[in-house]
Amino acid sequence: MKTAQHSLPLKQVTITDAFWAPKIETNRTVTLPIEYEQCKKTGRLEALKLQWKPGQPNEPHIFWESDVAKWVEAAAYSQETAPDPRVAKLLDEVVELLAGAQQPDGYLNAHFTVVNPDRRWSNLQEHHELYCAGHLMEAAAAHFHATGSRKLLDVMCRFADHIDRTFGPEPGKKRGYCGHPEVELALVKLYRATGEKRYLKLAEFFINERGQEPNYFKQEAEELKRQGKGPWGWYQHGYEGCQAHQPLRDQDKVTGHAVRALYLYSGATDVAEETGDPTLAPALHKLWDHLHSRNLYITGGIGSSRNGEAFSFDYDLPNEVAYCETCAAIALLFWNHRLLQLEQDAKYADEMERSLYNNILAGVSLDGRRFFYANPLAVYPEANKNNPDNIAPTRQEWFGCACCPPNIARLLASFGQYIYSESDQGLAVHLYAAGEAAFTAGGVPVTVRQQTAYPWKGKVRFHIKPEQPVAFTLALRIPGWSRGATIRVNGDVVTPPVDKGYAKLTRQWQKGDRVDLELPMPVERIEANPKVRMDCGRVALQRGPVVYCVEEADNGTELNDLTLPRRAKLKAVFEPELLGGVVTLTGTAWRRDPAAWGNGALYQAGPTARLPVPFKAVPYYAWNNRGAGEMAIWLASEGA
Amino acid sequence: MKTAQHSLPLKQVTITDAFWAPKIETNRTVTLPIEYEQCKKTGRLEALKLQWKPGQPNEPHIFWESDVAKWVEAAAYSQETAPDPRVAKLLDEVVELLAGAQQPDGYLNAHFTVVNPDRRWSNLQEHHELYCAGHLMEAAAAHFHATGSRKLLDVMCRFADHIDRTFGPEPGKKRGYCGHPEVELALVKLYRATGEKRYLKLAEFFINERGQEPNYFKQEAEELKRQGKGPWGWYQHGYEGCQAHQPLRDQDKVTGHAVRALYLYSGATDVAEETGDPTLAPALHKLWDHLHSRNLYITGGIGSSRNGEAFSFDYDLPNEVAYCETCAAIALLFWNHRLLQLEQDAKYADEMERSLYNNILAGVSLDGRRFFYANPLAVYPEANKNNPDNIAPTRQEWFGCACCPPNIARLLASFGQYIYSESDQGLAVHLYAAGEAAFTAGGVPVTVRQQTAYPWKGKVRFHIKPEQPVAFTLALRIPGWSRGATIRVNGDVVTPPVDKGYAKLTRQWQKGDRVDLELPMPVERIEANPKVRMDCGRVALQRGPVVYCVEEADNGTELNDLTLPRRAKLKAVFEPELLGGVVTLTGTAWRRDPAAWGNGALYQAGPTARLPVPFKAVPYYAWNNRGAGEMAIWLASEGA
Repeated sequence: MKTAQHSLPLKQVTITDAFWAPKIETNRTVTLPIEYEQCKKTGRLEALKLQWKPGQPNEPHIFWESDVAKWVEAAAYSQETAPDPRVAKLLDEVVELLAGAQQPDGYLNAHFTVVNPDRRWSNLQEHHELYCAGHLMEAAAAHFHATGSRKLLDVMCRFADHIDRTFGPEPGKKRGYCGHPEVELALVKLYRATGEKRYLKLAEFFINERGQEPNYFKQEAEELKRQGKGPWGWYQHGYEGCQAHQPLRDQDKVTGHAVRALYLYSGATDVAEETGDPTLAPALHKLWDHLHSRNLYITGGIGSSRNGEAFSFDYDLPNEVAYCETCAAIALLFWNHRLLQLEQDAKYADEMERSLYNNILAGVSLDGRRFFYANPLAVYPEANKNNPDNIAPTRQEWFGCACCPPNIARLLASFGQYIYSESDQGLAVHLYAAGEAAFTAGGVPVTVRQQTAYPWKGKVRFHIKPEQPVAFTLALRIPGWSRGATIRVNGDVVTPPVDKGYAKLTRQWQKGDRVDLELPMPVERIEANPKVRMDCGRVALQRGPVVYCVEEADNGTELNDLTLPRRAKLKAVFEPELLGGVVTLTGTAWRRDPAAWGNGALYQAGPTARLPVPFKAVPYYAWNNRGAGEMAIWLASEGA
Repeated sequence: MKTAQHSLPLKQVTITDAFWAPKIETNRTVTLPIEYEQCKKTGRLEALKLQWKPGQPNEPHIFWESDVAKWVEAAAYSQETAPDPRVAKLLDEVVELLAGAQQPDGYLNAHFTVVNPDRRWSNLQEHHELYCAGHLMEAAAAHFHATGSRKLLDVMCRFADHIDRTFGPEPGKKRGYCGHPEVELALVKLYRATGEKRYLKLAEFFINERGQEPNYFKQEAEELKRQGKGPWGWYQHGYEGCQAHQPLRDQDKVTGHAVRALYLYSGATDVAEETGDPTLAPALHKLWDHLHSRNLYITGGIGSSRNGEAFSFDYDLPNEVAYCETCAAIALLFWNHRLLQLEQDAKYADEMERSLYNNILAGVSLDGRRFFYANPLAVYPEANKNNPDNIAPTRQEWFGCACCPPNIARLLASFGQYIYSESDQGLAVHLYAAGEAAFTAGGVPVTVRQQTAYPWKGKVRFHIKPEQPVAFTLALRIPGWSRGATIRVNGDVVTPPVDKGYAKLTRQWQKGDRVDLELPMPVERIEANPKVRMDCGRVALQRGPVVYCVEEADNGTELNDLTLPRRAKLKAVFEPELLGGVVTLTGTAWRRDPAAWGNGALYQAGPTARLPVPFKAVPYYAWNNRGAGEMAIWLASEGA
């Protein structure tokens, strides 16, 4: 029982957008080759040759396949929309390597083939075998869709079959599941690509079994201890750390490792969509509410704590030490995108858009060469100088745990699939980006062309081109951040019904029809709930979906002393030469007069005089593209 | 070559002060017995019997003697001012135990006698043998002064002689020094108590040798590694972590473990005072400036980072995660008190007073039963609930590393010695507290009686009672926080010369002379330097030397959303029944209207309406005496 709508496939969408197309192009021409090189030079590709011997460098790591797999997935999406012979060549080579690493029984993981062959499936809580398998399945499905070749798909079906023989409720099979969810959503993708229902059933098993008593991980740990083989470090985070503390259907609070949590919820949403099982949705809705009302940064970042890369506690959203892993924001988009197919509610698209234009895009430099793992909302470089690479105050070329770079590459390469959904009713538009969508309505091929300068301007024009006149609904998302949206059809203002945030234009459409959506985009001063103790007395500037920050490059140091008068005028101007072309916000703020502190006092009786100073805010996603320096999203705000 | 003034000894000072006398009494009647019991029940006393055998519980720890020693020191001071048979009995018992633990060669440390006898003096950087020896020497000097008994003093002279035979520049001796400074200042105390110049010379050696090349700790670590015996955990903090990165005379920035740093500076100041060596003062002045202008909390707390209990970097003074070990604030007082004898500058007394009335007093509950190790400036209990005892959001009964409780006990028991200094010129008054000081001026016995309700009122009256008329200078400190101080002699306003913060009243004094000092005590809104990024847009309320905080008990939760209008009237009222009698500050603040967030939104466009709310601030030192809850010193402040 499928739900009514589904995402419009990548190959039915073209992107000509001035904002997105260059990013996707950079991803293809710069990021994908760089990531291939990193996989090569760090030994991730060599590992697949299974030639490693003890004592040699570059010992294959338990989760290296996941990095390679995400790169393959990214390259495949890229080939689907913009075939590139250079990428094609690299892709063929890597697929060949992956195929060659498969064992006769279907198993595939270099570490557990050449380093610890006796430990296969022995420590599901900490090892990442099923996690890696999942990413390989996603890669296989993408590769199949992009190239039509079953090569990797067949490899992964063999691996999935092996997993299916190993895990399940039947006697003699392991009733285990992975410490790091991922294989669940991947099995659904494999099912969709192949039609093999066992894969869907296995995904369902993994979801259902997780957190049941007696807890599999407890039994596993006892066995490992008996054998003197464990546990590793992840145990300290407990079952909550990997969402195995209770069955998903009983959970109502997001907890533990953010990426694990969101991949699990995504997989569960896929299962709910494919099976029509109504018992998953209530828990998913509770978890969604808990996450989005108490544990979400304004950037779409989640998982505030470096300790366990995890959620900490409600409303605990520190800025300087925000972890906000790039992968977690991407996972948030994945989950919201899946919920949106289950139920067309604009709140899901709002959150997709929030993470997309803010935390996710911040994950990669504008030139496509460097990456953030953690995405803090404020940076004081001196405070971070001794921090490891993954919470560095500047983007890095690569990471020991390199999950984020290929994750953002696959997201950008597949951006097109997040824009539209189609259903019997017609087409729903979730995101605004110039380009074209091709679909059929009542059997009639239709093209919808979007023209827009989003996110800098709130005007979006749609040219509707059915091959022949046909009735369908064009559902346009009215973003949660917008107020006073207007819609015109062929120049005339219309007031269509709005259902869960979608304005539904239902009519007989014909070639030449034109729809104009206008979303006013004033600069908003956003406040955080008073329970978010870090942001009291502060505002974040947002315009459309874009959250702004102030940087040292524009505003000097001591950004925390910059105070935004509550009623100060803010000017939004597009600067085509700055940071790839962005709208900046400028105005006058206050700073305490340095002369009042000329004696070097650490404390003195106030109030000290303040001076008006010009300030400029830039989109958060574009920060740290002009060298290291202070940065802040939440600005002190006050009075007149 | 001694400096001109010295601290008036404890036995020449009596305290009748309404603020201090009850605290000193509670220290004697509650805290001292409790701490004795803790030492007993944790095995710290039993350890001194040297009966421990491998496999038994309560393995003697390398620094247990230091806890016992500080308790002895505290008990001795207490006996000196308020003899108590119960304390006397416990004191005798413990001194007996300590004496019994001494080895024939003078060595004394239970751990290195019964647990690791082969490791004596082998790991100076990490073990605490000299540190413990130092605390025992301090205890011995205090015990000797209080009781006249040489029992412990002789024990410690034998230990000091052993140390003197072991360490020094002479061939065959170790050129080492302790990873945790303390023995330096203690050796000076022992020298002062005994007149034995070798002890002063040894203190000088330890100061001079520290940080010289080749670095002793480097050589030691290489030797330990060779023997497979180390290093322990402290190595990660490097030589800077224990101020051994360069000779003290070359240092100009405070660094590393805060208590170690301040004990070292204190010892160096003692050496400078006793030897007249002018080469130490320049470095001490640079370090003082660096610490007090960039690394000091408004509470007198120092050492912001839990990592290494250390200074982090300039102006890095986070509030919620402020470490501010109680011992470090006490060490700050120790050092400033010593500098004050070297040079009578009120800035040193100002900092003594700051730490005393704020961070130090916060270290113990009003009932004398529980202790803070870390003293954060803001607390959100949920954020600390998983933290270990020493950064807990509530005071604890004891700690594994129990340095703080006996440190505050010895400070309170010896409070009298910090109030006055005497010199050829006369008497200097550094702190204001009711009581009496006895000294001689030009051979004439003089009594000066202070009457005051400080710190709640700024009026202080002095009754001067020389046995016969005599000329001397009464130097009164004009606190750095005060503006508009007035002085009257026998009712007439006088304007004496003020030298480095001391108003100097020089005249022929006779019985019945009366001096009135009046220090206006308005509520001050203190601001932190704009470089302290955590406190921008915030003020701390201070009245006289007392820093205030808001607590959940008076103001509810979400204290960070409480905003103090910049010009709001603040009422200071003495509440005799509250927290042992305190002046509270009340007024009207603002909070955002909860109704504006009734939908549970995490983010929304502002500005949201605000409501006036009554607020009450209490002295920081008295916080957390009404259950666990939020607390904040730095309050949002704004506009009209």
